[in-house]
Amino acid sequence: MLYEISEKAIQLENQGKQIIKFNLGDPDMPTPPEIVEAAYEAMKQGKTKYSSAAGEKKLRKELAAIHDVSVDNVVVTPGSKWAIFSSMFLLLKKGENVVIPSPHWTSYALAARKVGAEPRFLKGTLESDWSIDVEKLAELIDDRTRLLILNSPSNPTSKVVDDKTFSEIVQIAESRGVTVLSDEVYADISFVPTKSILDFGTEHILINSFSKTFLMTGWRIGYVVVEKELAQRMIKLNQMTTTCVPAFIQYGALKGLESRKKIADDIREQFRLRADVAIKVLSKAGMKFARPDAPFYLFPKVEGLDSEQFALKLLDHGVAVAPGTAFGDYREYFRIALTAGEEKVKEGLETLCEALP
Amino acid sequence: MLYEISEKAIQLENQGKQIIKFNLGDPDMPTPPEIVEAAYEAMKQGKTKYSSAAGEKKLRKELAAIHDVSVDNVVVTPGSKWAIFSSMFLLLKKGENVVIPSPHWTSYALAARKVGAEPRFLKGTLESDWSIDVEKLAELIDDRTRLLILNSPSNPTSKVVDDKTFSEIVQIAESRGVTVLSDEVYADISFVPTKSILDFGTEHILINSFSKTFLMTGWRIGYVVVEKELAQRMIKLNQMTTTCVPAFIQYGALKGLESRKKIADDIREQFRLRADVAIKVLSKAGMKFARPDAPFYLFPKVEGLDSEQFALKLLDHGVAVAPGTAFGDYREYFRIALTAGEEKVKEGLETLCEALP
Repeated sequence: MLYEISEKAIQLENQGKQIIKFNLGDPDMPTPPEIVEAAYEAMKQGKTKYSSAAGEKKLRKELAAIHDVSVDNVVVTPGSKWAIFSSMFLLLKKGENVVIPSPHWTSYALAARKVGAEPRFLKGTLESDWSIDVEKLAELIDDRTRLLILNSPSNPTSKVVDDKTFSEIVQIAESRGVTVLSDEVYADISFVPTKSILDFGTEHILINSFSKTFLMTGWRIGYVVVEKELAQRMIKLNQMTTTCVPAFIQYGALKGLESRKKIADDIREQFRLRADVAIKVLSKAGMKFARPDAPFYLFPKVEGLDSEQFALKLLDHGVAVAPGTAFGDYREYFRIALTAGEEKVKEGLETLCEALP
Repeated sequence: MLYEISEKAIQLENQGKQIIKFNLGDPDMPTPPEIVEAAYEAMKQGKTKYSSAAGEKKLRKELAAIHDVSVDNVVVTPGSKWAIFSSMFLLLKKGENVVIPSPHWTSYALAARKVGAEPRFLKGTLESDWSIDVEKLAELIDDRTRLLILNSPSNPTSKVVDDKTFSEIVQIAESRGVTVLSDEVYADISFVPTKSILDFGTEHILINSFSKTFLMTGWRIGYVVVEKELAQRMIKLNQMTTTCVPAFIQYGALKGLESRKKIADDIREQFRLRADVAIKVLSKAGMKFARPDAPFYLFPKVEGLDSEQFALKLLDHGVAVAPGTAFGDYREYFRIALTAGEEKVKEGLETLCEALP
């Protein structure tokens, strides 16, 4: 349905209609020009040949320094989605399962099922401010559970898991022999401090990406930090599937890392302003939602809403959102990605509120 | 072992040693500058966002026109290797098998095994000029055979399958319900005309790439032409794994297609000159090999040779080649990729001949 909305929004645009697109986690801002220029320079310098399936040594070194791990723990991947898929492909056997707090990013469940594993969801509630019930989470784990997914800040709720809960979840996972796959792609631009799985060593899986922090969604570059043996297995899988991330893209990313703090600060600030506008408009309309701890999303609830029907209807009003059903059992919810400027956010959300049944 | 040689060659280079690298199928020539410029322009125009998992419509249309198929038959992939892996991932069940004429490109067998299938090799011989024995090939097919791989021109032998044999193989595959996966990445730069699987419709799988024809190895862009239902499955797999090939890379590739014939003609001509030099040097040394029908490879035999030991020893003489064992049961052979200028080809191969045991 997420895909259907996206395709229909593009169709309408091709017909000349103006659509305010809140449906994808793809920021409207361009990639910082210094990253574009660095990639171009690298192309001209011939960084257009096959390169290492592990990633360029320089980039891995820089990432290792940032995370205070060894270069051997870092593998550069064509996007964080590939990092997630390859983790599941390598670690999950048919019939095993993955525990996933819900609402959750669509790709976790798709990837798990694609490799023959069962995704097991812990249904969170808006009423509890999307907190994770650790006891109930523990009950979902059995002897066929191999992975547990943490995604803090969360897509679609933009909530951050508090330190205590994070630690408790890791402890439970460790006591039951389960690996935590921690998707932290929104952490660098979070409004509040976040805990990282690397605070617990490199025995688990850190998933990260340049997409959100560096406005590089379409460049397809992410990375993992994992224990060395798993890193070797991932490098081998890269060798027989995607070969490498284009080296010139890695040099673009490397340039981004030079001004990592500044770029992240800028993005965070822009999204904070947008979030403030969105909160105001939605609150005024009496909508229920959790206050976001991070960019880019809001995940409001409207009692009795069929969000799939609503999302389709809303397109006719020139606004695209993602129905809650794309993120689990959340038909009364929809996801708003604040990937447009403040004025558009105001205009789009006012239109949305008026269009509500 | 291919990887070990490659890594050791890079290590030696990092130590300041000059290595003539015949070990990888990665041409020394730079990507044509108009492709680099087109990619840069696309980046600046903001083609840096998520794009279609099927590929940019413009590129698919152009490829569809070239191959005289529908846009819906074309899927752009991050390299032909991913196209091969995803074909196997989607089509092969555990315990099924793939028939592969050997010597063969390493990745076919690696991918097949990785998805739990059995690669079944038909051992070809230099003495028969690497022709494929169609009867013996047919004998390898059983009711668990799902795919048959054709790779003409071939890596590592650079031989082209003649039209009659090609047709016979397709007929046998069709009569036994087996899909042909035809890897034609060297076809556009072949010295002799080649037959394409598309001459038999779109029921099979055409694998192609921009790597060799457009000197874009490190850009990671290839494509498949397949029947529409399989195309849809591949697009869905892209959505949950690699998302998309960066759009700006696709605009670079699109620019390449504008001067497709000219670029291919240039590359072909350069490789023809290199092949002539190589043939002269190797013939003078009395080496046995098949005359190449296409770039980039020669696959000579030296009776009694242990090519793994030889390849390692040869590195000390400043020349890197790939041992025959990387391409099947071919310990007495090694692969020379003519990815250096004529002078270097002469120098490197003379050194090689002197170093022979």
